[in-house]
Amino acid sequence: MTVRVGVLGYRFMGKAHANAMARLPMFFPDAPDVERHVLVGRDEDALADAADRLGFENTATDWRDVVEEVDAFYNLGPNHVHVEPSVAALKAGTPVLCEKPLANDLDGAERMADAAEDAGVPTATAFNYRFVPAIRYAKNLIEDGALGEIRHFRGRYLQDWLADPEAPWSWRNSAEMAGSGALGDLGAHTIDLARFLVGDVERVSGHLRTFVDERPVEGDEDGAERGEIETRPVTVDDAYSAQAELEGGTMATFEASRFSTGHKNDHTIEIQGSEGSLKFSLERLNELEVLRKGNRGYETILVTEADDPYVEHWWPPGHVLGWEHTFVHENYEFLSAVDGAASETGRGGGETADGSGDYHPNFEDGLAVQRVLSAIQESDERGEWVEVA
Amino acid sequence: MTVRVGVLGYRFMGKAHANAMARLPMFFPDAPDVERHVLVGRDEDALADAADRLGFENTATDWRDVVEEVDAFYNLGPNHVHVEPSVAALKAGTPVLCEKPLANDLDGAERMADAAEDAGVPTATAFNYRFVPAIRYAKNLIEDGALGEIRHFRGRYLQDWLADPEAPWSWRNSAEMAGSGALGDLGAHTIDLARFLVGDVERVSGHLRTFVDERPVEGDEDGAERGEIETRPVTVDDAYSAQAELEGGTMATFEASRFSTGHKNDHTIEIQGSEGSLKFSLERLNELEVLRKGNRGYETILVTEADDPYVEHWWPPGHVLGWEHTFVHENYEFLSAVDGAASETGRGGGETADGSGDYHPNFEDGLAVQRVLSAIQESDERGEWVEVA
Amino acid sequence: MTVRVGVLGYRFMGKAHANAMARLPMFFPDAPDVERHVLVGRDEDALADAADRLGFENTATDWRDVVEEVDAFYNLGPNHVHVEPSVAALKAGTPVLCEKPLANDLDGAERMADAAEDAGVPTATAFNYRFVPAIRYAKNLIEDGALGEIRHFRGRYLQDWLADPEAPWSWRNSAEMAGSGALGDLGAHTIDLARFLVGDVERVSGHLRTFVDERPVEGDEDGAERGEIETRPVTVDDAYSAQAELEGGTMATFEASRFSTGHKNDHTIEIQGSEGSLKFSLERLNELEVLRKGNRGYETILVTEADDPYVEHWWPPGHVLGWEHTFVHENYEFLSAVDGAASETGRGGGETADGSGDYHPNFEDGLAVQRVLSAIQESDERGEWVEVA
Amino acid sequence: MTVRVGVLGYRFMGKAHANAMARLPMFFPDAPDVERHVLVGRDEDALADAADRLGFENTATDWRDVVEEVDAFYNLGPNHVHVEPSVAALKAGTPVLCEKPLANDLDGAERMADAAEDAGVPTATAFNYRFVPAIRYAKNLIEDGALGEIRHFRGRYLQDWLADPEAPWSWRNSAEMAGSGALGDLGAHTIDLARFLVGDVERVSGHLRTFVDERPVEGDEDGAERGEIETRPVTVDDAYSAQAELEGGTMATFEASRFSTGHKNDHTIEIQGSEGSLKFSLERLNELEVLRKGNRGYETILVTEADDPYVEHWWPPGHVLGWEHTFVHENYEFLSAVDGAASETGRGGGETADGSGDYHPNFEDGLAVQRVLSAIQESDERGEWVEVA
Repeated sequence: MTVRVGVLGYRFMGKAHANAMARLPMFFPDAPDVERHVLVGRDEDALADAADRLGFENTATDWRDVVEEVDAFYNLGPNHVHVEPSVAALKAGTPVLCEKPLANDLDGAERMADAAEDAGVPTATAFNYRFVPAIRYAKNLIEDGALGEIRHFRGRYLQDWLADPEAPWSWRNSAEMAGSGALGDLGAHTIDLARFLVGDVERVSGHLRTFVDERPVEGDEDGAERGEIETRPVTVDDAYSAQAELEGGTMATFEASRFSTGHKNDHTIEIQGSEGSLKFSLERLNELEVLRKGNRGYETILVTEADDPYVEHWWPPGHVLGWEHTFVHENYEFLSAVDGAASETGRGGGETADGSGDYHPNFEDGLAVQRVLSAIQESDERGEWVEVA
Repeated sequence: MTVRVGVLGYRFMGKAHANAMARLPMFFPDAPDVERHVLVGRDEDALADAADRLGFENTATDWRDVVEEVDAFYNLGPNHVHVEPSVAALKAGTPVLCEKPLANDLDGAERMADAAEDAGVPTATAFNYRFVPAIRYAKNLIEDGALGEIRHFRGRYLQDWLADPEAPWSWRNSAEMAGSGALGDLGAHTIDLARFLVGDVERVSGHLRTFVDERPVEGDEDGAERGEIETRPVTVDDAYSAQAELEGGTMATFEASRFSTGHKNDHTIEIQGSEGSLKFSLERLNELEVLRKGNRGYETILVTEADDPYVEHWWPPGHVLGWEHTFVHENYEFLSAVDGAASETGRGGGETADGSGDYHPNFEDGLAVQRVLSAIQESDERGEWVEVA
Repeated sequence: MTVRVGVLGYRFMGKAHANAMARLPMFFPDAPDVERHVLVGRDEDALADAADRLGFENTATDWRDVVEEVDAFYNLGPNHVHVEPSVAALKAGTPVLCEKPLANDLDGAERMADAAEDAGVPTATAFNYRFVPAIRYAKNLIEDGALGEIRHFRGRYLQDWLADPEAPWSWRNSAEMAGSGALGDLGAHTIDLARFLVGDVERVSGHLRTFVDERPVEGDEDGAERGEIETRPVTVDDAYSAQAELEGGTMATFEASRFSTGHKNDHTIEIQGSEGSLKFSLERLNELEVLRKGNRGYETILVTEADDPYVEHWWPPGHVLGWEHTFVHENYEFLSAVDGAASETGRGGGETADGSGDYHPNFEDGLAVQRVLSAIQESDERGEWVEVA
Repeated sequence: MTVRVGVLGYRFMGKAHANAMARLPMFFPDAPDVERHVLVGRDEDALADAADRLGFENTATDWRDVVEEVDAFYNLGPNHVHVEPSVAALKAGTPVLCEKPLANDLDGAERMADAAEDAGVPTATAFNYRFVPAIRYAKNLIEDGALGEIRHFRGRYLQDWLADPEAPWSWRNSAEMAGSGALGDLGAHTIDLARFLVGDVERVSGHLRTFVDERPVEGDEDGAERGEIETRPVTVDDAYSAQAELEGGTMATFEASRFSTGHKNDHTIEIQGSEGSLKFSLERLNELEVLRKGNRGYETILVTEADDPYVEHWWPPGHVLGWEHTFVHENYEFLSAVDGAASETGRGGGETADGSGDYHPNFEDGLAVQRVLSAIQESDERGEWVEVA
């Protein structure tokens, strides 16, 4: 079967996923055939241009026309439009991949996860960093017990694009449109990796901060001329930190900021266990630092050998991959699950009893992360520890 | 004047300070003359041996005989013996240097700080990492505004000597003798650097954990033979984390552990401001990573130039210093303050009105740190944020 | 015009260039339209399979049938088949991209460069590392004088795939098929970067070594059974080093090895000038370490900002690129030159008077590198310094 | 016995060795008692001041008065005064430690080594980097075969104190006084480590360069006023590189420069063997990067464990040492050998038959290095490879 994909959103994430789909035939020949069937957006001119560049057959300005007709629906829009189209697609029995965080709030995420369960089709929350070869390698090490009992998990995600108080307002600064700030945008990735590599988050103590309360509206040139630049309020966090306890007794700390001057996309993970430790940094994503039992120091492993996860599809040892490759792996896995589910049951089947396939991270994983995000926000408001639901 | 120093404690810290005093004449010719006058301990044989090796003229088994007769008293014993001898020395008008943390609990620290204030002589809490040239360099950068408004402070101090559950029990595992575990032993350093570099800690949320509840008593060979090894309870934290707000609005996270497999003495500080950022690691203490305004990335500065703090006393550029040099700088500053205070007023005078000199970190600084330690413990118990007194 | 490309070779390099061409429309919309027209090889089954996977319209088993009919000919075969097809293509007026080193020996390279000059069409020697954004950034720094007068150039390219004496024989071990070993395969890249970044190589002293004289033939299972594994002689260098003087007085050292245990694709460049210095490592190709005037240490620049070379075509800051992206940039530049040349003159025109366009590194650059390779070999044989022709 | 030491030279090296001797009693209690007996120099005022600061009992302005009366003679003067006093001391049966390189030229070094052999007392060439714990650890690894057959040795020693053409002239710029420049001053260390860790140097190809031909005389203020600053010619190399073959077939490259902008005391060693590899950097001298068999990447070993070479004398794990500690270890070993030799035979005895003890690196080692220095210079002059005598 050819999987016809409909994609809502044609900017950063649209490009990342379109590229990923385009690269499957050459590098993952056992992936299903994929047709970039329809690109959905509101601005018709920009949309036509993007569809042409990104290789889509058709365009549409209303996702309602799309969610039923495609074999998979990608929801890559801002957070506040995650719920309605995703639920609609699932009600139509269409598998859905949705960007992270799953929703603006816990209620939205629950509706999406419920719809996924009802539909019994594959879903994906787009935590692409699970698909970094070095992260998969780390996962294997941990599952093999190479690190022993996990004592500490530390995850930090640092950026600096808001460090300048004059950086313009965007939807990412709005609670209504984004749900939260650094917490949902960056922290969601960290929390997903904590769950993936170690286990569920059981209780949290959170700390949110907004350093700059309002920001100029971009392009308000009239206002600039009059010296009355329009501003809009920042209603989300610029940075968050959290302390947590994970399943099995691991002590965890999380942190993210958009005010970390000099850090561009600096997502680091550190894990320390009774038998060994590891460190990962997204800006050096081909490397994993591992302290193995019997060694004394961290070993810098270049995760580019043929038998490392996903690597045989690409290049010889030492020929490094980039950030975008995580999307190729993610699309490969998700679209294979969609194809497998469809094959088994006609439409809507899958490898597992309920037809949802075994793809992870799915909407249930997205909901689990949302529960932690929500608990961190609640903890910050109440000034005390909060159990994760 | 020759400063005659009496030292309580002849193990790790005794050696570090004795070495520091011994090195002053060759490298800091303007330091006062110092006599390692008397070494205090209980085990007479071990004491005599240590005094010989460490260059002390005399020994004593009771600190009560010592605190009055010396020009400076160094209290390097376990935490639970910090209060009484230090207060007695101060009552006798003798300047005191005390190892960190200042006391087992807030009450003890307050008594010590009160005694210091009454005495009006120089005191020191031995936060030696203030005397790393790279940390002084960082301090100067921050004071010059090179980092702008400080947004983030992160401090972590990781060791692994308790990661093995069979590692033997010591006084450092006892609440009665040590007050706290990783928090007081390691966290005190981090919190002092936060205060030194950024500002006071205003409120905290803490998290303490004990991973291993009891440990074998070392050398219980009879028990080992019978298969009944004696154990003692671990009544302090093996690891802590904390979130905090600092004076001026800085968001801070602190963390320390004795279970961080592969980390030996890994104290790292990261600071991010509106104009620049910096990173420091104790295991590479000659280096400071600085992001300056106008640069794009962190610059690895080797803080070994002649005009870097303290460096002209030592070696040419690139000839790196070690951990112990921090004690030499600390002793130089403290003993100079002691000498200065004595010169002005006979005994007990100083550069400032009250004769305490301007030496920092003094007992007031030690008390300020103790307040944070105490608040972190209280926050952990209550499960909520706590204002620092 | 649509540029129809014929490609000889469908393994490692075939995949790298096919991928590069496939990605142009989405990321470099101003690139010419490119058709992967025909894939050339000898094994028809493998060829058909590769053509399907790599997106070629047609296949051919004889390059003679191809070189005239295409708009650009890519010669990605082993070194010993570089000359004849390339010269034939050029005689037919077809632009040629040829993998490095240009030829087995100086004579072959001269014939190719002569043919290129006669043809007056764009040619490329595939030194793809000129197209790493960080290398371009370095080039700009040097041209702007930021490093002052260049005193030192150091280039090393370390791999370890032959460290095991039982690693099987391949064409890369044969002087007849490869010309040289580490020198031509790896050193050619280093020497090209020396020329690109600093200037021509004027004289050299070379040192070649073969550590293992013969290697087993892969797949000789009969022999293995009889305990008589067939071996073939290694007639090229396993490693080389060289000292050199570059144009303008720069002192240079080059080195490469296939016996550097633990190093996979470790190409490092270091340049030190009177005003500043820089360091680059291929395994961390998104980074450049720069010592600028006015700074004290190396600054780790993540070359992923929108205004860094080629970066705006890809992803936001901190979203790192991989090894393969260098081929996309190289194909973009070369195919644009091919298109430009064709547009101006019908077939065979270009931006420059002679229609060759201004694309670099071209065959002349490939020849210049070959002269250095040849001089290093000659120097090693004669045991003395050799002037580069 | 108390070893009475006479020291010629009271600047940088005088301070380094005096400090080393002063620290022995506290840290190496089994070292012999050492008396800093007499300090030798020409400027009486400066000498008296230095003797006071460095802890010497006496001063002398003529080394002839000293070499007989002391139990060990330290020759820390400029290279051109190494031969005569050292030979005189040896003729008097006095053990000698001499700074590196052993002499200005091969002839001088041979005279010194001959005198050492005749005297049969311990001698030392002060290659202090053999006494870095990490280098000893590396030595042990190599001797245990952990790296297999050594294929590559690379050593580079980079400084930048002459990068500025206006940096003043000193004796180190004079062939008459220093013998050579970067080659003898820095390269001697590298070559000694090659011999220590791998084996003798058998043949070399050298390259020397002087970038700046003359330099201003420091303190010529009259000249500066008249605009006629006096200059002196630079008659030594500013930088050198060399290729070499070591005993056993190792391929080696050496390099040093005083023009490496941004590098202060950057001595790096890399060794690659058939089973493993290692890397060392003097500016991070507590660390050793080791690729062990069975691992995939370099492991960063902090060489600060109690059972690492020399470490148990100092501090707990992770409490790093500095550059100066190498001198303490060197003095400990040399003075113990002096003491041992004297004990056995009255004066002039030793552990070995000829009474020279087994101390290394001795004058024979210094001569072996000098042979390589000399061969590199000769090779540069002749433009061809030179066998080391």
